[in-house]
Amino acid sequence: MSFDVAFGVDVGGTKILLLAINRDGEILFEGRRSTPQITTAPGQATAEQIHGLVDEALGSLQLSLDNVVIGVGLPGIMSLDGELVFAPNLLNDSGTRLAEVLRQIAPSMHVLCENDADCAAVAEHALGVARGVDNFVMVTLGTGIGGGIFVHGELLRGRSGFAGEIGHMVVDAQGPPCPCGSSGCWERYASGKGLARLGSLAAHEGRLPELVKARGGADNVRGEDVSAAATAGSSEALAVIREVGWWLALGVSNLANILDCGLVVIGGGLSDLSAMLIPPALEFLPTMVLGAAARPRVDMIASKFGERAGALGAGLLAFERLS
Amino acid sequence: MSFDVAFGVDVGGTKILLLAINRDGEILFEGRRSTPQITTAPGQATAEQIHGLVDEALGSLQLSLDNVVIGVGLPGIMSLDGELVFAPNLLNDSGTRLAEVLRQIAPSMHVLCENDADCAAVAEHALGVARGVDNFVMVTLGTGIGGGIFVHGELLRGRSGFAGEIGHMVVDAQGPPCPCGSSGCWERYASGKGLARLGSLAAHEGRLPELVKARGGADNVRGEDVSAAATAGSSEALAVIREVGWWLALGVSNLANILDCGLVVIGGGLSDLSAMLIPPALEFLPTMVLGAAARPRVDMIASKFGERAGALGAGLLAFERLS
Repeated sequence: MSFDVAFGVDVGGTKILLLAINRDGEILFEGRRSTPQITTAPGQATAEQIHGLVDEALGSLQLSLDNVVIGVGLPGIMSLDGELVFAPNLLNDSGTRLAEVLRQIAPSMHVLCENDADCAAVAEHALGVARGVDNFVMVTLGTGIGGGIFVHGELLRGRSGFAGEIGHMVVDAQGPPCPCGSSGCWERYASGKGLARLGSLAAHEGRLPELVKARGGADNVRGEDVSAAATAGSSEALAVIREVGWWLALGVSNLANILDCGLVVIGGGLSDLSAMLIPPALEFLPTMVLGAAARPRVDMIASKFGERAGALGAGLLAFERLS
Repeated sequence: MSFDVAFGVDVGGTKILLLAINRDGEILFEGRRSTPQITTAPGQATAEQIHGLVDEALGSLQLSLDNVVIGVGLPGIMSLDGELVFAPNLLNDSGTRLAEVLRQIAPSMHVLCENDADCAAVAEHALGVARGVDNFVMVTLGTGIGGGIFVHGELLRGRSGFAGEIGHMVVDAQGPPCPCGSSGCWERYASGKGLARLGSLAAHEGRLPELVKARGGADNVRGEDVSAAATAGSSEALAVIREVGWWLALGVSNLANILDCGLVVIGGGLSDLSAMLIPPALEFLPTMVLGAAARPRVDMIASKFGERAGALGAGLLAFERLS
């Protein structure tokens, strides 16, 4: 069957975004709902929320469910056959096959699920800054770090579909514990939580005196405060951003050494933060990659689609695999 | 042209191994020479030494140069078109195209060069313990750590052919400096040099009292002494091996998180050491890989071909690409 419209859905820890797109990736409809935080039968509340958004989009576009294919990006490791095996930020849905739950609600739904960062990588590869680039890594900076890897022009899935969990690469074995059970994971440093942690550390160590004063104490300094102060030009806040940029470069260098990717695309929910982190990271990177002087430069570019990349890519994957 | 015999050559930091093989990978001839340590025109001394070995093999098998294809594995990052871009343990040959130097000596030679760990991965994939495994990583433990990565059934080369430099993945950003310029690279811990370093540390910290006594001082304790004592059953030496095994598992866990490889093959020059390290590493691994309880186990197996894997794979690649 041939479809002209796909819905791409990106399920995050706090909100769900739906984009309706045509085959050129043009956005025909955009809708958002909050991610349900209630504990029901696994997957049920999330599926109902998605179904509500789908109904809204169908109504707005005057389409029926038979006319569309739907891709859903999920924040966790996904098996090749669509099970959300482990999702630390969507724990109630871990272990479910959300596509099956959705089809129980709406039996005629054409739907697939894929890892959210893989979806974002697909969007940037098809229509964004990684167009025509065979070897690149999509790094999504949010609360944690997600990853989608392209090698030799194809999405790297690995044995079970779990490839790309770059946020839990240990970069500092003596570092702080991570909820995943390891210590010193990359996302302890170069993510939203990483900025919050390094900012708090800097505040308590006296490296953010102005910000501590403005916030009424080191305990009140949050990651957003550091970003905002850095954007306003505060040199003490910029030094913390620079530190996070160093950690970003360190992980990117590891990926470049392992994968020989020529490009790293930085996206995710914290797009403003990404933009601030790229310049310092690009400064540090050539001092880190093995034999950097003798090889082509590894580039880092901000995602074209920002926080919409996941939903867009989920829609593109639905076109590719379901029609 | 069709060839019945390939020569696979593995150039290491101290010795050069040549294997003549048939299409079934059976070894028809084996020869060794030392790696020249003299500084001549880049690549020249190494090429002459290889040429000598080739002549010896041809004479022994009563073949002429026209009858064989030759693959050479080199210890460094190799470009897709055969330049040895950077080789810390073969510095005089860095920047050369060894195949061209060889053809200047013997114009009719059918020869290609490839990264040595990539060659080892090819051998294990074609005829060894990774036969039929689409996603695996070959980890070669020697002085440092080399890597060859298979994804989706194919050797991962990356943008320029440099993929697989897993030994310079930083796992301990606050760790000891590495000659590559970074700090805390994986090969500072889980390699021959890593064992030597961690053994020396243990000796100076009083954790190897018997060995220190036997060697007449902490300064005299070498990596080989720790291996030998561990093999003989010394519990204090086994504790150091266990520590190295923990670091081996840590890097393997990073690779599994990034690549979702189901198998890691441990090989390289230190085959005895590898065999000792695998059991403790396999104990630690399930506590490290993300969502390990919910996914299939990541296995680690000793290489089938040990220190011959590189030369064997170089020969197989010559069959594949030159005939």
